[in-house]
Amino acid sequence: MNSDAVAKGRLSVVGLGPGNPNQLTPEAQLALAAADILFGYAPYLARIPERPGQQRRASDNREELARAQEALIEAAAGARVAMVSGGDPGVYGMAAAVCEAIEHGPQDWRDLVIEILPGITAMLAFAARVGAPLGHDFCAISLSDNLKPWEVIERRLEAAARGGFVIAFYNPTSRHRPWQLGRAFELLAQHLPVETPVVFGRAIGRADEKVTVASLRDAGEVTADMSTCIIVGSAQTRIVDRGGNAPLIYTPRSMPSPNT
Amino acid sequence: MNSDAVAKGRLSVVGLGPGNPNQLTPEAQLALAAADILFGYAPYLARIPERPGQQRRASDNREELARAQEALIEAAAGARVAMVSGGDPGVYGMAAAVCEAIEHGPQDWRDLVIEILPGITAMLAFAARVGAPLGHDFCAISLSDNLKPWEVIERRLEAAARGGFVIAFYNPTSRHRPWQLGRAFELLAQHLPVETPVVFGRAIGRADEKVTVASLRDAGEVTADMSTCIIVGSAQTRIVDRGGNAPLIYTPRSMPSPNT
Repeated sequence: MNSDAVAKGRLSVVGLGPGNPNQLTPEAQLALAAADILFGYAPYLARIPERPGQQRRASDNREELARAQEALIEAAAGARVAMVSGGDPGVYGMAAAVCEAIEHGPQDWRDLVIEILPGITAMLAFAARVGAPLGHDFCAISLSDNLKPWEVIERRLEAAARGGFVIAFYNPTSRHRPWQLGRAFELLAQHLPVETPVVFGRAIGRADEKVTVASLRDAGEVTADMSTCIIVGSAQTRIVDRGGNAPLIYTPRSMPSPNT
Repeated sequence: MNSDAVAKGRLSVVGLGPGNPNQLTPEAQLALAAADILFGYAPYLARIPERPGQQRRASDNREELARAQEALIEAAAGARVAMVSGGDPGVYGMAAAVCEAIEHGPQDWRDLVIEILPGITAMLAFAARVGAPLGHDFCAISLSDNLKPWEVIERRLEAAARGGFVIAFYNPTSRHRPWQLGRAFELLAQHLPVETPVVFGRAIGRADEKVTVASLRDAGEVTADMSTCIIVGSAQTRIVDRGGNAPLIYTPRSMPSPNT
């Protein structure tokens, strides 16, 4: 960081990874240590050790844009600000909210030093725990219809299934969205074999981690919440039984030509 | 690691991230330090400092399955083996090759301790450098038709464009695949506005990093190679001009309802 950058403040958007400190990158660690003020969703801030002289401003979920604006105000006033984001800030995280605030904010926010530090996003940490389900082409879909119409989600589910993509669901369900996940499985079952593997990973990398292997036939019976990442395989995805060890779930790197 | 695991060997598949040592996770560092033998594609192994007593077996590209089998043979003989993979091993990396080798290999390979350590995959590191282009639903597509028929790739490109996904291309082009990338842009331009942002990131996080911002209209004129990650926006993706600073490219978190 040069003295110029300090003079006009800076905003680092920091990916915390899935919650295991051994999966936090060194550059993220450094940015957290160097900050004057930490901003973020309260449960994410709670993961970070307190430091003398460092302020923290916890906020609630669903307040991303207001949180980004407050952080930019502080950075514009000269502070070194770190905005924490679970997983990777660019995947359903704070990076897009910060960009949006800058686009619609005062001109001087465009002069700030903005640094986005990537992190291990949930689907990558989860995939690594079970094998390599994302080993071939895949997509990520947020099942939350708070920020987009449900029709768009259905169109994307159909496109993903028809295209043969493995699908990772983020924000699969919540108290206010009780039926959407079941509907998504029903829709996918119209396009994919009912034997298609569906893997549920809750709190991956944390002490209470839980993995459940199901299929499209019975996935609707598995409990999920906002801390769950779900991966729906493609027609190619394989389950390798290993007796006493957990099975390996993977999608092969290659796809045979239809004529061979 | 318990003595049992040492007795029967173990294989760690280690994500190196995009190449910047500050983006290598602590758990990946530890696994590299603890290994008796490192396996991997030569340029990835070259990034890791030599350690006394540690063997290394470099291999060529396109030899993933043979490399996985050799590593499993050593692990089954009792060695602590680390298989390195650029970026994240689960995204077009070595994790799927290891799972495939185990599925088709001798029964005792299923008893080995297999550990996959995630890394920052290219599209996340690249997205963080330019803003938040993957801020909403997105997909990853390998443009290599070495391992799947080109018709499958075209079907996926169309599905992704119709579904409104942002698209990250891996393996966009090589000496033996000169026309595929241009054809992909042509195909996408049939479904998406020609103004759709297309961002090229070469050697992200390394000393020779290069970012180029184009659109579907002129993307075919930009030079790319195997070290390039390309992100094609959706119709929602925005470019925020910042004068002297690099523009911010992002896809908003929300999508308005068509009736509002």
